[in-house]
Amino acid sequence: MTASGTTTHVVVEPAVRSCASSAPTEAPLDRAAAEDLAKTLKAVADPTRLQLLSLIRAAPAGEACVCDLTEPVGLSQPTVSHHLKVLVNAGLLRREPRGTWTWYSLVAEQWEGLRNLLA
Amino acid sequence: MTASGTTTHVVVEPAVRSCASSAPTEAPLDRAAAEDLAKTLKAVADPTRLQLLSLIRAAPAGEACVCDLTEPVGLSQPTVSHHLKVLVNAGLLRREPRGTWTWYSLVAEQWEGLRNLLA
Repeated sequence: MTASGTTTHVVVEPAVRSCASSAPTEAPLDRAAAEDLAKTLKAVADPTRLQLLSLIRAAPAGEACVCDLTEPVGLSQPTVSHHLKVLVNAGLLRREPRGTWTWYSLVAEQWEGLRNLLA
Repeated sequence: MTASGTTTHVVVEPAVRSCASSAPTEAPLDRAAAEDLAKTLKAVADPTRLQLLSLIRAAPAGEACVCDLTEPVGLSQPTVSHHLKVLVNAGLLRREPRGTWTWYSLVAEQWEGLRNLLA
């Protein structure tokens, strides 16, 4: 976090700037927020995980268990479970143990936040 | 949440399905599309690049040159140029040489596509 709430007077000396635009000198997205967002995006930036998310989203009631997901992506259950865990840790999927299986659904608020940040 | 309060008759056919859902067996997002999207997301999934995108988006007329971007992210011009190149290669930024400097702006259609795929 930066020292927000303080009044800053920025004096730009002409010799310092080499081009004539008036672009902002402060990042609208601060470093901490950028690092958080990058972490979330890294979890999504994998073809298998994108397919899994897509399958869960399209599943009845928006939830699926590992047993539904292995066949469409052509991977073993431990591999699919690993990918799902990455997405759960990134806050993008919710896991709910129910009987023998664990069910996964999208965390709507997290996706909404991600979309807004990319908008 | 558990299925409390409902009477459920579950017939499990042991050999065929191991769980009772009717999830789709085909990925709505095919492998090729998932790989393309993952590639684009990987380009974005970096804190510095997210800050650069945010700065360009917030800049007057939605465009900025390297000279505007080095100071806010606290990196050298070659490093910033490298990050910008990654974003240009991913189709997320447009580069336009003008005079001494090259100006960068967001490719709206690519961002729209990205948002829709994540929606």
